[in-house]
Amino acid sequence: MKTIRAAVVGYGNIGRYVIEALEAAPDFEVAGVVRRASSKMSIPNCDYPVVSSIEELSDVDVAIICTPSRLVGESAEKVLRLGIPTVDSFDIHPEIVSLRRRLDEVAKAHSTAAIISAGWDPGTDSVVRTLLEICAPKGITYTNFGPGMSMGHTVAVKAIEGVKAALSMTIPVGTGIHRRMVYVEVEEGYDFAKVAEAVKSDPYFVNDETHVKRVDSVDALLDMGHGVNMVRKGTSGKTQNQRFEFNMSIDNPGLTSQILVSAARAVLRREPGAYTMIEVPLIDFLAGERESLIAHLV
Amino acid sequence: MKTIRAAVVGYGNIGRYVIEALEAAPDFEVAGVVRRASSKMSIPNCDYPVVSSIEELSDVDVAIICTPSRLVGESAEKVLRLGIPTVDSFDIHPEIVSLRRRLDEVAKAHSTAAIISAGWDPGTDSVVRTLLEICAPKGITYTNFGPGMSMGHTVAVKAIEGVKAALSMTIPVGTGIHRRMVYVEVEEGYDFAKVAEAVKSDPYFVNDETHVKRVDSVDALLDMGHGVNMVRKGTSGKTQNQRFEFNMSIDNPGLTSQILVSAARAVLRREPGAYTMIEVPLIDFLAGERESLIAHLV
Repeated sequence: MKTIRAAVVGYGNIGRYVIEALEAAPDFEVAGVVRRASSKMSIPNCDYPVVSSIEELSDVDVAIICTPSRLVGESAEKVLRLGIPTVDSFDIHPEIVSLRRRLDEVAKAHSTAAIISAGWDPGTDSVVRTLLEICAPKGITYTNFGPGMSMGHTVAVKAIEGVKAALSMTIPVGTGIHRRMVYVEVEEGYDFAKVAEAVKSDPYFVNDETHVKRVDSVDALLDMGHGVNMVRKGTSGKTQNQRFEFNMSIDNPGLTSQILVSAARAVLRREPGAYTMIEVPLIDFLAGERESLIAHLV
Repeated sequence: MKTIRAAVVGYGNIGRYVIEALEAAPDFEVAGVVRRASSKMSIPNCDYPVVSSIEELSDVDVAIICTPSRLVGESAEKVLRLGIPTVDSFDIHPEIVSLRRRLDEVAKAHSTAAIISAGWDPGTDSVVRTLLEICAPKGITYTNFGPGMSMGHTVAVKAIEGVKAALSMTIPVGTGIHRRMVYVEVEEGYDFAKVAEAVKSDPYFVNDETHVKRVDSVDALLDMGHGVNMVRKGTSGKTQNQRFEFNMSIDNPGLTSQILVSAARAVLRREPGAYTMIEVPLIDFLAGERESLIAHLV
């Protein structure tokens, strides 16, 4: 099997797990890790080159963007301008359409491709939502998350001034409604009330019931497990009461990283442009010969 | 929205429900029903032309093949040779790859396209199986069916000499293993033991524990409800114990017909060739503007 050389852009939680998923995949090789120039240029127990610009790495076939969502547009754009395809797990739902437009233009101008929002939600959950509308076009799908840590929300809290450490837990309260339980350690000299207010008015939290708690140790609360329960009751043609349910119980960064690596395979088969997962044939995400996959999966 | 004119080829259980699903869809119009010349050329309460050859219908954009699986290859080929795209719900799993090859060649030769095996299994279940392998490439997926009537298996029993009426029920016994409970009314003058033997040695039944029961009235047993429970435990990257589950409880012909109609939309957006559902972007199965669908579903 031809080896795909992947660069990992960003080395946080997701970046680490992406390296594991690349190592576990039969068709990938780690080209190296790209970090901001301000980050440490050596990583303990990391066998791969660590550089501050992707151009320092050789023969990169695809870049897996593992920076926080707010930096994804900029990071991906920089890589696409070099003609290198990108995948990301951008998770700010209301901004997905505009990120897609932005990267679509850049990708086309540089004859390359991007798959955006390729995590589990947005990502594989989006695929399930689409599938359920194919099965029963009329009806309501409820996506219930958790209980579990939201990485996107946690990163958003960490970016707030005065926050030393943070954890945002998502609690399902039914019919797609969630409570946000946010645990923060506050930097010395900062007012907890002001920090809590800043969290509640952040775009990530403004639409949900949000409780902010001050704790001594966020670390003591950490668990990367997460869950989804998706339910649809709908109508196929004129047939009522069709019922569907999707559940998962997963390690969050483990799953996100695997989906990113699968997407890094699919993006190489795209025409120039930017795509969400529902715009890409699912078979392209898998390693292996086409007819064997069809015989095995269809 | 531009109206797509669909011809319904075959008027059994699925054909009837396909007409309902076409009537319920915002972007379809029924061009007419195609039946064998030996069938009745008028259908009670049917407002559409009934013909014995698709060429008698005007402006057909797509044909929905609703004949029994064993006739799908022939029926689809005939239509594809006219340059009209087809969709079908061919459900003989071991023959899907060869049907795809056969229709791929014909479709390409006539600059048109086919989506094959677009029911729920094969079909949307295949999409779920593929999605779960994207999420956790190592592991086992179990597909458990029922309890419910298998239309493909029932049609196969009905085709056996001496069978007056039949019902094949699928009973899940766990880890993807099923029992087949087959209920038959026997034609006068036929030996039940021979009929039962013919059922058990049919390719549809030969690999499963099959019980054949003689009954006075198959009709009294009929219920079109069906179910699926799909389970995968697997590894994402190097992260073990990722768990996924998909359940549905559905009216069988209602769902199959809706998926066929959704596929009839997607096939119009394909390059020439034959495709299974896992080879087609899911967004193409839905009515509506692309960016709105992305904003709503991703």
